[in-house]
Amino acid sequence: MNEKMRELGCHRSAIRELFEYGKRRRAEIGDDKVFDFSIGNPSVPAPERVRKTLIRLLTETDPVALHGYTSAQGDPTVRTAIADYLNRAYDAGVDANLIYLTAGAAASLTISLTALLNPGDEVILLAPFFPEYRVFAERTGAKVVSVPADPGTFQPDFAVLAAAFTDRTRVVLVNSPNNPTGAVLTEASVKRLVALMEENRAKRKKPIWLISDEPYRELVWGDATVPYLTRYYADTLVCYSFSKSLSLPGERIGYVLVSPRADHAADVYAAICGAGRALGYVCAPSLFQYLIPDCLGLTSDLTIYRDNRALLSRGLRDCGFRVVEPDGAFYLFVESPEPDATAFAERAKSLELLLVPSDSFGCAGFVRISYCVPTDQIRRAMPAFRKLAESYGLKRA
Amino acid sequence: MNEKMRELGCHRSAIRELFEYGKRRRAEIGDDKVFDFSIGNPSVPAPERVRKTLIRLLTETDPVALHGYTSAQGDPTVRTAIADYLNRAYDAGVDANLIYLTAGAAASLTISLTALLNPGDEVILLAPFFPEYRVFAERTGAKVVSVPADPGTFQPDFAVLAAAFTDRTRVVLVNSPNNPTGAVLTEASVKRLVALMEENRAKRKKPIWLISDEPYRELVWGDATVPYLTRYYADTLVCYSFSKSLSLPGERIGYVLVSPRADHAADVYAAICGAGRALGYVCAPSLFQYLIPDCLGLTSDLTIYRDNRALLSRGLRDCGFRVVEPDGAFYLFVESPEPDATAFAERAKSLELLLVPSDSFGCAGFVRISYCVPTDQIRRAMPAFRKLAESYGLKRA
Repeated sequence: MNEKMRELGCHRSAIRELFEYGKRRRAEIGDDKVFDFSIGNPSVPAPERVRKTLIRLLTETDPVALHGYTSAQGDPTVRTAIADYLNRAYDAGVDANLIYLTAGAAASLTISLTALLNPGDEVILLAPFFPEYRVFAERTGAKVVSVPADPGTFQPDFAVLAAAFTDRTRVVLVNSPNNPTGAVLTEASVKRLVALMEENRAKRKKPIWLISDEPYRELVWGDATVPYLTRYYADTLVCYSFSKSLSLPGERIGYVLVSPRADHAADVYAAICGAGRALGYVCAPSLFQYLIPDCLGLTSDLTIYRDNRALLSRGLRDCGFRVVEPDGAFYLFVESPEPDATAFAERAKSLELLLVPSDSFGCAGFVRISYCVPTDQIRRAMPAFRKLAESYGLKRA
Repeated sequence: MNEKMRELGCHRSAIRELFEYGKRRRAEIGDDKVFDFSIGNPSVPAPERVRKTLIRLLTETDPVALHGYTSAQGDPTVRTAIADYLNRAYDAGVDANLIYLTAGAAASLTISLTALLNPGDEVILLAPFFPEYRVFAERTGAKVVSVPADPGTFQPDFAVLAAAFTDRTRVVLVNSPNNPTGAVLTEASVKRLVALMEENRAKRKKPIWLISDEPYRELVWGDATVPYLTRYYADTLVCYSFSKSLSLPGERIGYVLVSPRADHAADVYAAICGAGRALGYVCAPSLFQYLIPDCLGLTSDLTIYRDNRALLSRGLRDCGFRVVEPDGAFYLFVESPEPDATAFAERAKSLELLLVPSDSFGCAGFVRISYCVPTDQIRRAMPAFRKLAESYGLKRA
């Protein structure tokens, strides 16, 4: 058999491992005794319109049409609705004929990377990054070049980034709002990043694609805005998922789009279609395709995440933890009070607090705390966080 | 970009190409003027219980649970229900812990092949075969060894098959009932196939896996039964989809299972989990996972296909065509009256009959006619089939 695949199956991601542990642990000692902050599973229900639209589709549509194959790229009316929405909302300049519906953001990424990369190519990732990026990129035979972000702001460190480009750099993959830090790439960062990419592309006379993975686009707090990257760089692919915005992560629905301004955009799109085919995707789940036009621009009640963030952030600071104040997503990035974040996470686990150490995100010394949990869980977990802080001699602020 | 992927995207499968042509052509000259027999898109609606169960789930289940991530392998209660059903219905001897829910049969296959194969390995396919098998196998770096079936019965030609095994043979992939011929592997054929595989495994001291792709399991006509292959060979993986039995091809729901009798079954299963992860599958669509326990053993109204088959088969014979009488699936395999099946299919196309030439299935001289179409379409297409037959000087039987 394939040994790499066996290993990937035996050693689940640290996040999935903790998530599975949490499920077992809750069964052992009770739901209310385990404080699981491990996974990015939206805790806010899908908007009521999702339920209503699904029931309407099931009631009013011919089941042969509703559940039948769509074109591999996705139903054309759905793709047109998405293009119209993006052009209206972000002046994105996208084209329905260059949108490919997928089974969620992970599919968008594996399809995009398979379409673009050849063995030996290099993919620049800005660390910390979602650990599956490495799995997805390396499966194509490409090499991951991990570039640490500025540890104060979690914006790119441009000096380090500039030195990371080589003749083999084919893709820069960005994720804003970021998992695990919550950081949003500012417009100033985008402009510097794009200038670097343009410069390297010109100097090396080789294409360099920007892949923007943005399942958290709508999850931003305060005044932050998330620049739409097709407006800044021609060779851009946007990977999107409705998992977080509509609280549908299990349903697997999203898309990838190729900017019409990209060099050889039609060829890149053909490669996307080819990769989707070769990986066995056939088409995105049809019922959930037809749901999308009615739900564009709609989100679950995100105020709950905003309130969770404030509550948890304040609570942890009060305990004496150093918390990175994030602009987006539903994660807090918290500095480990000892250099070994895995040891810190283990100690937290002994208090039934499930936190993901940052090492698996390609960055040492932090834990990721998902606050997409019932607000009540944050309140009930506070004594355990306090105990944890005290065990390190941290002082209340 | 990746040139192979671009090519796969530019040159769609002959089936998909015809399907897309059919959609365009219908828009041009009207739905009732085009006789599209190209694609295996079930024409019979999903059973009413599917609609009722989906609406009940949407009405009664907490949306956070219903639409949330499941374990990557799929919800455990769903996997248990499937194992119980298979053990009851087929005495299959399978285990819920070795079932992995997937986004349909294509996903089951790409995941299984990625889990088992390394570059340079060989996969034996019995021709004619579903053309995407080649795409899925070759993407892993493996080599396809195509072994023609007996052209009279479309059972394996065991003399040719015996000569096809080498030290690099890792997988034999069978599909029964077969797409495109409709042939069902008889128990006698299964026993001879398994004996050959055992013999080669012992002689070469190398593992050889049997992958059984069986989305058409329930679509059998007359007295044919479809042997359950875990009962005959230890190192068996079964790939299944609910696409055809429940008429849900667009929803992408199926599974792959590893026989508990397989050598290193737990490792093979781990490799399946690793491959699902690396290809970006995350989990099978959750709403449709939860549908399954209520629908095991249920099928759409298959009598319509049986009647279509009889009507089309008789009609084509009356025109003078030679028709292979299939035991299963919803395809007729019809001999081309000229050696070049593509030329025959082109002439059919000029009469608005969309038939898939057999060349893309790895076998010359036939066309595949999908009879999962409205019965009325078969009746209305008959004058065109008659014209087509007459253009070749075929005589009414």
